[in-house]
Amino acid sequence: MTAPLSSLTAQIDRVDRARAARRLREPFRDERVTLSHGSGGRASRSLIEGLILPTLGALATTADEDSAVLSLSGLGHGRVAFTTDSYVVSPLFFPGGDIGSLAVHGTINDLATAGAQPVCLSLAFILEEGLEMDVLRSVLRSVGAAADAAGVKIVTGDTKVVPRGKADRLFINTSGIGLVAEGRSLSAMKMRVGDRVLLSGSIGEHGIAVMLAREALEIEADICSDSAPLHQMVADILEAAPTTRAFKDPTRGGVATSLNEMARQAGVAIAIAERQIPVRGDVRAACEMLGLDPLHIANEGKLLAIVPPAEANDALRAMRASPHGGSAAIIGEVLDGPQDMVLLKTEAGGSRVLDMLVGDPLPRIC
Amino acid sequence: MTAPLSSLTAQIDRVDRARAARRLREPFRDERVTLSHGSGGRASRSLIEGLILPTLGALATTADEDSAVLSLSGLGHGRVAFTTDSYVVSPLFFPGGDIGSLAVHGTINDLATAGAQPVCLSLAFILEEGLEMDVLRSVLRSVGAAADAAGVKIVTGDTKVVPRGKADRLFINTSGIGLVAEGRSLSAMKMRVGDRVLLSGSIGEHGIAVMLAREALEIEADICSDSAPLHQMVADILEAAPTTRAFKDPTRGGVATSLNEMARQAGVAIAIAERQIPVRGDVRAACEMLGLDPLHIANEGKLLAIVPPAEANDALRAMRASPHGGSAAIIGEVLDGPQDMVLLKTEAGGSRVLDMLVGDPLPRIC
Repeated sequence: MTAPLSSLTAQIDRVDRARAARRLREPFRDERVTLSHGSGGRASRSLIEGLILPTLGALATTADEDSAVLSLSGLGHGRVAFTTDSYVVSPLFFPGGDIGSLAVHGTINDLATAGAQPVCLSLAFILEEGLEMDVLRSVLRSVGAAADAAGVKIVTGDTKVVPRGKADRLFINTSGIGLVAEGRSLSAMKMRVGDRVLLSGSIGEHGIAVMLAREALEIEADICSDSAPLHQMVADILEAAPTTRAFKDPTRGGVATSLNEMARQAGVAIAIAERQIPVRGDVRAACEMLGLDPLHIANEGKLLAIVPPAEANDALRAMRASPHGGSAAIIGEVLDGPQDMVLLKTEAGGSRVLDMLVGDPLPRIC
Repeated sequence: MTAPLSSLTAQIDRVDRARAARRLREPFRDERVTLSHGSGGRASRSLIEGLILPTLGALATTADEDSAVLSLSGLGHGRVAFTTDSYVVSPLFFPGGDIGSLAVHGTINDLATAGAQPVCLSLAFILEEGLEMDVLRSVLRSVGAAADAAGVKIVTGDTKVVPRGKADRLFINTSGIGLVAEGRSLSAMKMRVGDRVLLSGSIGEHGIAVMLAREALEIEADICSDSAPLHQMVADILEAAPTTRAFKDPTRGGVATSLNEMARQAGVAIAIAERQIPVRGDVRAACEMLGLDPLHIANEGKLLAIVPPAEANDALRAMRASPHGGSAAIIGEVLDGPQDMVLLKTEAGGSRVLDMLVGDPLPRIC
């Protein structure tokens, strides 16, 4: 992020760790989630104070208030980004991540693509009665580690429990607040003809990793989710290419759906070249066996950027310098028509319309 | 709310209604939720543009961006309240409300009790495959009406779909942002010995109404949920009694649990008089038949306030003048001990310790 924002931090009011620590009178020994843990009464408090707060550690504030009150210091201009996502991925744990890290990265990335510096997250669980407490503990550790690595705080939360059979083990909602720098305004509607389309790396890994973990398919592959926080990459790109028009993280529906949404927002066409799009060999092979197009598969650590031609190479260099953007590429450009459409120049030399995802070949990948 | 805040509004950037309207090329005719509606692809877009945005109406921004960018005008001091809650109430519709109005009121009330002026909400659905679209439409209408009546905007959202049997029809998460006036700081930790405890009205109606709707019990009663937004009442009380220490909405776990939490936060005792606590006769009768204590039953439109003695009568008048506080009463006061405990002076003249809710006699009431 640009200099003025990098020094901004959220100061959380009303943190009283000594008091919270004093309350941990008894160790938390419950082995499974019961309906009482969702009652709001004694068992709920025990869960929060005995498991959730200690596992999240210094990242979380106390649970004494129903709202966190934040001093967004330096926020003279008063612009914030606000986003929400629920996570229902199945299985909960997959190569390269789990529902906890995903819930942190996904919401950070929705803030980052708005050009915001992520500041804080909320964390709300819906738990199924009978869930092993060790599963919740692992997810909490993962939430804590991901938030810590990304420099965001968990400032408020909620826990509900539903009877056995009324949910699938554990769902998470994270909402997030980020600070938007003065004058910063990113939107696909700012795209102009000739702008370049950049993609930060190889596609399809998250969706395929989750799919293989879920179905235990007989596909020999060592594919990990690309789940990662992208806010630093966004900040670096904006530093290098300050007139960048827009970002998007191609999650559900993949690159094809994201580009279609952007083309429709701006009322332009986007043309991309198949040969420029990085796809790992094993992802491509898995997609072929499953009859899927990698362009429709979800990513959780990739970034699309629309950049004016004069700054495209600077943006590309910034992407490639990022730990999550080593295989970044310029994959296409903005055309004036056919309006609202995405065109794919195939490796064979032809051209076809690339549609949004239709149907859902891979449900519950986030 | 005090004057400076009442004029603050959130200006939502990037709203482009004309464009959104243009896209509604086809009427939305799907009758049930399918997994495709959660894919992020064409069916998801159709659900958002064909049902969600039109039903929420002018309250919702477009779904073109993953984050809403808000100009919190006048926010020179930069303090916001942030809260989250998931709603899993069963049944979805009950006398006096439904999961949609509850999700708006509950989150507004968590902001209000922090002394914040609610500004905007997020709205995230987890839908079960097969859910009748008419159910979703009714819930959306209720969300829209409740948000409209309370003057808050739905600025960002998310929709996930899980396979049949993996959720119970429809869950909602709402998170919210509110503005906190300069110098405003409410906390149970500010309670002093002698402070009065005020309750804004009769208790137990929400929990009992949901319970009766769910179980179709043979109890003749006409009990409606008290679900209501409390931010205006909070503002009026703060106007009348500016040194009010803290508010709390006694939801899950009821008045007993809320008071216990506050006593523990402040390290004080709270004594309340049973005869002062308003309980409707039919609620009391239903509780007796079910073996429940009304003090442990959830409310969704009641407020507890801790007020210094000199301002207690002013606060009470403000509560009673509110449309949701007609039967408000002073129910008790803060004592210096026994620390962390709540004492109930019974109608019979005795006194007993009033504990937090233990177990969960009424699961899924919010």
